[in-house]
Amino acid sequence: MLIVQKYGGTSVGDLDKIQNVADKVSKTKNANNSVVVVVSAMSGETNKLISYAHHFSKNPQKREFDLLVSSGERVTASLLAIALGQMGHKTVALTGRQAGIYTDDVHTSARINKIDRTKIESHLSENKIVIVAGFQGITSSGDISTLGRGGSDLTAVAIAGAIEANLCEIYTDVDGIYTTDPRIEPKARKIEKISYEEMLELASLGAKVLQNRSVELAKKLNINLVTRNSFNNNEGTLITKEDNIMEKPLVSGIALDKDQARVTLRGVKDEPGIAAKIFTTLSDKNINVDMIIQNIGHDGTTNLGFTVVQKDISKTKKIIKKLHPSEVMEFDDKIVKVSVVGVGMKSHSGVASQAFSALSNKKINIQMISTSEIKISMVISQKWGEKAVKALHKAYKLDK
Amino acid sequence: MLIVQKYGGTSVGDLDKIQNVADKVSKTKNANNSVVVVVSAMSGETNKLISYAHHFSKNPQKREFDLLVSSGERVTASLLAIALGQMGHKTVALTGRQAGIYTDDVHTSARINKIDRTKIESHLSENKIVIVAGFQGITSSGDISTLGRGGSDLTAVAIAGAIEANLCEIYTDVDGIYTTDPRIEPKARKIEKISYEEMLELASLGAKVLQNRSVELAKKLNINLVTRNSFNNNEGTLITKEDNIMEKPLVSGIALDKDQARVTLRGVKDEPGIAAKIFTTLSDKNINVDMIIQNIGHDGTTNLGFTVVQKDISKTKKIIKKLHPSEVMEFDDKIVKVSVVGVGMKSHSGVASQAFSALSNKKINIQMISTSEIKISMVISQKWGEKAVKALHKAYKLDK
Repeated sequence: MLIVQKYGGTSVGDLDKIQNVADKVSKTKNANNSVVVVVSAMSGETNKLISYAHHFSKNPQKREFDLLVSSGERVTASLLAIALGQMGHKTVALTGRQAGIYTDDVHTSARINKIDRTKIESHLSENKIVIVAGFQGITSSGDISTLGRGGSDLTAVAIAGAIEANLCEIYTDVDGIYTTDPRIEPKARKIEKISYEEMLELASLGAKVLQNRSVELAKKLNINLVTRNSFNNNEGTLITKEDNIMEKPLVSGIALDKDQARVTLRGVKDEPGIAAKIFTTLSDKNINVDMIIQNIGHDGTTNLGFTVVQKDISKTKKIIKKLHPSEVMEFDDKIVKVSVVGVGMKSHSGVASQAFSALSNKKINIQMISTSEIKISMVISQKWGEKAVKALHKAYKLDK
Repeated sequence: MLIVQKYGGTSVGDLDKIQNVADKVSKTKNANNSVVVVVSAMSGETNKLISYAHHFSKNPQKREFDLLVSSGERVTASLLAIALGQMGHKTVALTGRQAGIYTDDVHTSARINKIDRTKIESHLSENKIVIVAGFQGITSSGDISTLGRGGSDLTAVAIAGAIEANLCEIYTDVDGIYTTDPRIEPKARKIEKISYEEMLELASLGAKVLQNRSVELAKKLNINLVTRNSFNNNEGTLITKEDNIMEKPLVSGIALDKDQARVTLRGVKDEPGIAAKIFTTLSDKNINVDMIIQNIGHDGTTNLGFTVVQKDISKTKKIIKKLHPSEVMEFDDKIVKVSVVGVGMKSHSGVASQAFSALSNKKINIQMISTSEIKISMVISQKWGEKAVKALHKAYKLDK
């Protein structure tokens, strides 16, 4: 098999952990696989460099900032190559440039434009383990760019796509994706397989493991992604396309998003353009709106509800009060969003009502509801958040 | 003026020191100069990376080792660019590759083959302060190479040559080159100007400041080198060609080399090829021989003396005993070499006899003597080393 493995910052956090990674890579290679390894910087290193830059300037030049923060991954890549070399493997450590990763010139959050697969493939054909410094590429003018948060995952997925790898394994310090946050519900189980779409909807469950940007790219490139723990040999979670999942679960997981605040506008004049005006203004001010719900009211008015992330609520309040779309405006940051996600919903009815009953049985009042094909999201009072997660986890028998 | 400045590891040892360097560079730029700055890694960083590599392997792959140890200079270059940017300067930080520094492919001790001056010059023409990561270049196959010990000095001198700079300033944490080691003779004075040739002969005095490799390159390229202290504004020492030094001093400095051991072979058969055999064998075993003296003996035999560095003396002893060139062989590692250096010697007689008298007056016995056009070297007992330096320093009135 042709396998791309990516090891995150905690997995290469010190020299002993790098040796542990070398052992894992060695085993994979010895099992008759071709292996490309993408590494992050040793945990803490990149943050240290960022703090150095900010010692000198609040707004460091982005080109120079990229040159600075790209160095941690090069260190890890070299060290891993040296460790594997000592174990008798043929290896080569490559920078983003040497791996043929070409990006646009948006420094600090560049997008990968192209990967020249011939560079990695020529090393693989010489039976080498190819080790690539993650998170970085080069711009058309030959400058070093970085890919932003989760950049090393993105490097791994993009390389897997370019060389048509059979598998892309993302190693972190957790076992995989769980049916819900195990800190809330100790009965949470690790999910064996999940579709890209579900993973995207369950972002908050996987946030520590995998960023949406990487899942989206894996989906686009049709890469089988596995998230695993570098500190044990447990099977991880396979993220793949829906067709590859034989037994489609009704519900795959329950996500709790504590970082939401609710805005409700009652009696908004029901005339064209009013919603557009509100959301365009918010968007212009860089405020991301998550759920949006509109209901018909009475007397030619409508009720409009939406959520924003908590840190934006006071800014949102100011903007909305200025626009003054209605007399009754509520701003509530003491809420959470709980979501039920599962591809099985598409073909099953009654999934939503099961959720509502589960919460109602616990006397939890639902303030807002929004549904998509594979997700039901409910806004409830902050104080009921964990209780709701447990109730839903049990209702859908996710602990079984 | 077009000035290249190089700041060593201690000069950029922490963030405050990098700001100090930024202030110095800023002043130079504001005084209407074009400035290229070459930086080392923050002191300790490169050694840390080397120790990491040796944690995994005694003989790390050299290509990967270079990728690893070249990262410290990139960090410093980026940070200095950010600091200068914050001060309102236009700057650009360049890697060895981006600065157009092409080397051979001898990883860990590469030689600079060529500098593509157009890269640095195009940035200078845009009024930017150009900051270059020292110690590194790229090979013809696009791999990162490093230049070995003193590599950043070499980068600075080579760039100064390529862009035809008026001056190349090497900043460290000492004021310049002294007439002798101030720890031995507190009356030692800083030398204002010194020729390349003298500097090369005084290597041990300048070792902390400047390596011979850089002086040799400066001589070849005819670069005016100045060594200065980054922590004060004192004038440094100008190292230049002899023609630029109007008043040629009889003696410029006194050097003491404590790292020598003496081998004396008495009654060696005086036949062709015997010296060649001895020194070829030593060279094959990577033993560097410094002074070599041969005197006519009697009865068709000769006396042969030479010095090696102390760590090689037991190895040398074994080799020589095996060759057995004579019956009487002495091996003494309790010696030092004291040298008197000055371009004025060329045209003045009596300089050597002055040295012998000075030592004789102090009852210091001279074991070996070797002279060149601008140097007199004497091997004496270890215990007289510092006394001899003081006596010679006084004899040539270097404290005046």
